[in-house]
Amino acid sequence: MSNSLGKLFKLSTFGESHGVAIGGIIDGCPAGLHLDLAAIQAELDRRKPGQSSIVTQRKEADQVEFLSGIFEGKTTGASIGFTIKNTNQKSNDYSDIKDTFRPSHADFTYTKKYGLRDYRGGGRSSARETANWIVAGAIAKQLLADIKINAFTSSVGDIFLEKPYQDLNFNLIESNIVRCPDESYAIKMIKHIKEMKKQGDTIGGTITCVAQNMPIGFGEPIFDKLHARLGKAMLSINAVKGFEYGSGFCGAKMKGSEHNDSFNSDGSTKSNLSGGIQGGISNGMDIYFRVAFKPVATLLQKYNTITKDGKPREVQGKGRHDPCVVPRAVPIVEALTAMVLADFYLLNKTAKL
Amino acid sequence: MSNSLGKLFKLSTFGESHGVAIGGIIDGCPAGLHLDLAAIQAELDRRKPGQSSIVTQRKEADQVEFLSGIFEGKTTGASIGFTIKNTNQKSNDYSDIKDTFRPSHADFTYTKKYGLRDYRGGGRSSARETANWIVAGAIAKQLLADIKINAFTSSVGDIFLEKPYQDLNFNLIESNIVRCPDESYAIKMIKHIKEMKKQGDTIGGTITCVAQNMPIGFGEPIFDKLHARLGKAMLSINAVKGFEYGSGFCGAKMKGSEHNDSFNSDGSTKSNLSGGIQGGISNGMDIYFRVAFKPVATLLQKYNTITKDGKPREVQGKGRHDPCVVPRAVPIVEALTAMVLADFYLLNKTAKL
Amino acid sequence: MSNSLGKLFKLSTFGESHGVAIGGIIDGCPAGLHLDLAAIQAELDRRKPGQSSIVTQRKEADQVEFLSGIFEGKTTGASIGFTIKNTNQKSNDYSDIKDTFRPSHADFTYTKKYGLRDYRGGGRSSARETANWIVAGAIAKQLLADIKINAFTSSVGDIFLEKPYQDLNFNLIESNIVRCPDESYAIKMIKHIKEMKKQGDTIGGTITCVAQNMPIGFGEPIFDKLHARLGKAMLSINAVKGFEYGSGFCGAKMKGSEHNDSFNSDGSTKSNLSGGIQGGISNGMDIYFRVAFKPVATLLQKYNTITKDGKPREVQGKGRHDPCVVPRAVPIVEALTAMVLADFYLLNKTAKL
Amino acid sequence: MSNSLGKLFKLSTFGESHGVAIGGIIDGCPAGLHLDLAAIQAELDRRKPGQSSIVTQRKEADQVEFLSGIFEGKTTGASIGFTIKNTNQKSNDYSDIKDTFRPSHADFTYTKKYGLRDYRGGGRSSARETANWIVAGAIAKQLLADIKINAFTSSVGDIFLEKPYQDLNFNLIESNIVRCPDESYAIKMIKHIKEMKKQGDTIGGTITCVAQNMPIGFGEPIFDKLHARLGKAMLSINAVKGFEYGSGFCGAKMKGSEHNDSFNSDGSTKSNLSGGIQGGISNGMDIYFRVAFKPVATLLQKYNTITKDGKPREVQGKGRHDPCVVPRAVPIVEALTAMVLADFYLLNKTAKL
Repeated sequence: MSNSLGKLFKLSTFGESHGVAIGGIIDGCPAGLHLDLAAIQAELDRRKPGQSSIVTQRKEADQVEFLSGIFEGKTTGASIGFTIKNTNQKSNDYSDIKDTFRPSHADFTYTKKYGLRDYRGGGRSSARETANWIVAGAIAKQLLADIKINAFTSSVGDIFLEKPYQDLNFNLIESNIVRCPDESYAIKMIKHIKEMKKQGDTIGGTITCVAQNMPIGFGEPIFDKLHARLGKAMLSINAVKGFEYGSGFCGAKMKGSEHNDSFNSDGSTKSNLSGGIQGGISNGMDIYFRVAFKPVATLLQKYNTITKDGKPREVQGKGRHDPCVVPRAVPIVEALTAMVLADFYLLNKTAKL
Repeated sequence: MSNSLGKLFKLSTFGESHGVAIGGIIDGCPAGLHLDLAAIQAELDRRKPGQSSIVTQRKEADQVEFLSGIFEGKTTGASIGFTIKNTNQKSNDYSDIKDTFRPSHADFTYTKKYGLRDYRGGGRSSARETANWIVAGAIAKQLLADIKINAFTSSVGDIFLEKPYQDLNFNLIESNIVRCPDESYAIKMIKHIKEMKKQGDTIGGTITCVAQNMPIGFGEPIFDKLHARLGKAMLSINAVKGFEYGSGFCGAKMKGSEHNDSFNSDGSTKSNLSGGIQGGISNGMDIYFRVAFKPVATLLQKYNTITKDGKPREVQGKGRHDPCVVPRAVPIVEALTAMVLADFYLLNKTAKL
Repeated sequence: MSNSLGKLFKLSTFGESHGVAIGGIIDGCPAGLHLDLAAIQAELDRRKPGQSSIVTQRKEADQVEFLSGIFEGKTTGASIGFTIKNTNQKSNDYSDIKDTFRPSHADFTYTKKYGLRDYRGGGRSSARETANWIVAGAIAKQLLADIKINAFTSSVGDIFLEKPYQDLNFNLIESNIVRCPDESYAIKMIKHIKEMKKQGDTIGGTITCVAQNMPIGFGEPIFDKLHARLGKAMLSINAVKGFEYGSGFCGAKMKGSEHNDSFNSDGSTKSNLSGGIQGGISNGMDIYFRVAFKPVATLLQKYNTITKDGKPREVQGKGRHDPCVVPRAVPIVEALTAMVLADFYLLNKTAKL
Repeated sequence: MSNSLGKLFKLSTFGESHGVAIGGIIDGCPAGLHLDLAAIQAELDRRKPGQSSIVTQRKEADQVEFLSGIFEGKTTGASIGFTIKNTNQKSNDYSDIKDTFRPSHADFTYTKKYGLRDYRGGGRSSARETANWIVAGAIAKQLLADIKINAFTSSVGDIFLEKPYQDLNFNLIESNIVRCPDESYAIKMIKHIKEMKKQGDTIGGTITCVAQNMPIGFGEPIFDKLHARLGKAMLSINAVKGFEYGSGFCGAKMKGSEHNDSFNSDGSTKSNLSGGIQGGISNGMDIYFRVAFKPVATLLQKYNTITKDGKPREVQGKGRHDPCVVPRAVPIVEALTAMVLADFYLLNKTAKL
């Protein structure tokens, strides 16, 4: 049950980083949607390893193959099966990690929960899984063509992009390798990541996401509030430690008289501290939220840890890892946002007679 | 579908603030659990209105009546139905809100989504619903008697309880009306809330929750990560704007070499920036997280808004509302935490042969 | 999880026959449906005990009380909570059944599965639960006002109504107490049931149900085929042992050249051995199916059984039980049919762009 | 949502008969199960086309490839992805069916529901999908190694195997190509199917399935009764028109005094008209049920039908189709039975403290 997301627009996935392939099934995509397959692959390319000097240098083609549900370029209403082959799973030497629990990884918890673990490259806990999400998210984006979803890097370590999103040009997000739509901040962030990389260290950061041109009425009261489902989706991304929308944690410091969003006569609001959601339902204003990523746990340094038998062990971190996960997570945040919105778009079709 | 929470331990609810009653059905509670009904009512009393000078002065008995699923003091495995009568729904004069959209309420979105709304006291969007959650959470707590769940007020406005939770005595949480386990901070918080109340204004705040004595293995990989389900539950509470666990948003500023939690030889960790969860699964360390609440939107001030026809209108806020939702939300946070953990406790029984 | 039916139009229920009340929550009913409450109560009256000489003489008012989700006569999109009080649960003497497993009842399996059982009147296994289904089904009927759903008694013991349903006048179903729309067969059936009753025995029977004026497109391929969901719903009724639709078991004796339904030029078919469903999806022709009910297991005779400790025991059956469950099950079959169709009506709104 | 079966042991599938591949994801299989992959392939071989003279002569390797969830021969608790390549999807000439609705096929309903259809070989409505079910069922069988599940052909057309299952030797099921464990009946059935084939016609039949060595307690009250879930699963198989368990439709003719199953002192019952299920829960006796299959709709004869524009058209049926679906459906019935039981095995782990 834990490998599915969504109620009507539903993705189910499988795959380990070093298995034959990863993949998934998209169930519930309405029939008759003309799919732009190149646009889907382009989203995968935004996430794939090796795309720049500040991300992992691992090479992985990340080529999606669709196996069903599409006929003559259109969705048929049948479930859409797809796979992405793992082309990089060379016969590694796993002796370093086979019997060792790496700190702040899932090695320990998987072993305890399941009695065994696929230790090759993190197995099911690898962020390689997120490539599956990109595929489903790219289809969701096409289903919701009118809604504009843009995520971007809003901080790396202590470097915060201190501008309201309204002052940013989202067309610049892809203009630099850190995916920050402000060039001067981008330069600082990239420099910082490169320093971390040089030290064999890693650094955290945040991503801000904005959904514009939102219809009114997405989201369900009580336990499927739009922001609750967005939050759950974001917290499903590896390394995410926090989620806030609208005024977020800052809102907790405010007075009601400051925080309330007054209406214009057309039902839009003068301010938008609500983040485009009232009572769990979109109100037509922009939705915006922020996601916190911890630093990647895999370091290229020596560190002390324990074996599965509880014996101390010194390990030299190695391999090709991201010094900062945030740039590659930008399309993942967008993909999950699109999936959640697509689900509510469908659910909303039955809200009233 | 939006009125249910959980997969195996599942709560479904109904009820409007000014209807006959609210209530719910708890499905999936294992048979043979001896229920302490007084303890359930005691949790409801922690949440109920009118319990102190800094919460709404509305009076509501909040007496739960169980209708099924319990026999000779024990759960039978059958679904547990319950109701809580609304004793305070006097024939109000709703002319002020009937045709008016209050700012930062759900009035506008409900009306647009459903074509109509039950305007009496907020209808289904009222936080009265959370009384239902308390009932289910109280049962979940009894199912998980070994796990200690404590939530407390960690900030009101700008007043932050600046102590690590390890330095707090959770036995003091209920010793003051703001539910902050540090007396000196509690006094400041209470004073601040009273000032807000005097001004007819409201104030936001945060709640921190800690689950101790956690078993290893709760949580499922990928889309049912323990923290993702906790986050979704918390974001379901009215007025919540953010959720972070472990290092949270602070973790996004850190380096990997600072953030990793080194192992002790017994599998516990020296630090716990992970917040007790690795790869979505509990690792046996304390789980802790923080929830941000915006200020209550209902003010006892004059404000400008629009009618449902888009005409401007000045309204004088009145009634009996919470100047700060946080003290009464403390048991709600605990209840949802218990429900999420109970669900994973049951799910985990099938993880391995 | 076992107390809910449906995906979008979803009923969750609770209640034991001798508890305070039974009830349920209907989630997913679209907003804006004007509800005829008297029509709902009328359906309950069709099912209630004591309505004629051939059903149980137990008296139960079966008055539904709606607690939420309805405002000014219309559904609001919020979950609809309701209860039906148990007015007949006098302080019975249960010594006969408390420690005894009645043959072909759920006493044995509940006790083994749950470790205990609520032995009062069958507890959760009582068919009293089906009153809840009537409520939800009556609302589903109003949601699907254009579809005509008629069920009727098609056999009692060896007495089979040997006419195609097209030759019957469904307006006569309620004209007699056995609910058979052919007077001469009805007389025979009633006579047979009265004989059984006199002997302290019971008798089985079948119900046929027809849904007319069906839209095309209800049902989902693969695991939510329309007939599969109808079958599951029918097999949920106490005492049901079989389900067949269209040609049913007779179809298994036929040749393809006999069985295929040729098309008319408008897409309707000349014959309808398919029972209105092709590939799991309604084709616009009448849906019809048949449901087999075993004889009620509770006899007013002496019988030998065992105690919960495995000791032999002779018991004298007593009380007020149905000599034949079929007449009272007619509205239950209709209610479940309506619920299943309502769910597919909503699901079908997202089938294509 | 319609492409998934099960709650805890859950299969989700995709694939069209003439696409690249079909496949699925098995979610919820407990970790630590040693999988016999050859046994899984052997089950697929039982279902595959071309295995004998009385089934379709189409050749399809039906080789399963596992992509995830298995490590060093054992399940890991991760979702198990698999594909089965379609090796037989030669570039057919579809002009005969592209614009034509074949009688008693899903052509008409799919086109109306989705606005388009993948007409190649039936697309998603093809029984090729059932190969996916075999894979999941074979794993379920290994999870439930102690339970013996045997299905067999119990009738073809008018030829009924008129022996109680207790008199049959299940070891003989695979000894003949019609999968009837009685040689003399098998010969008659095979002869009949060959006659039908010669005429370009098809014939229906029934399958009986028996689950032995059943634990007590599988199944959930109310809407997830064991037989209701079995019935739904069986009714999901292409061409199935009916389901009955225990006494089934015959039980509807019986008296209660004949039908009740008296207890032995050990809780077993002297008779088993209940079919091993009381109140929706297994009682430890054999579960047995019967499934009715209509004759295959695709004939090798001339027939009249309509085009998608409603014009009459004469079509000459051709291709390689099963004259009787029943022999190849035997392993499918077993597979679904195993999946349903596996799900209840896991669900039952949380029934009581």
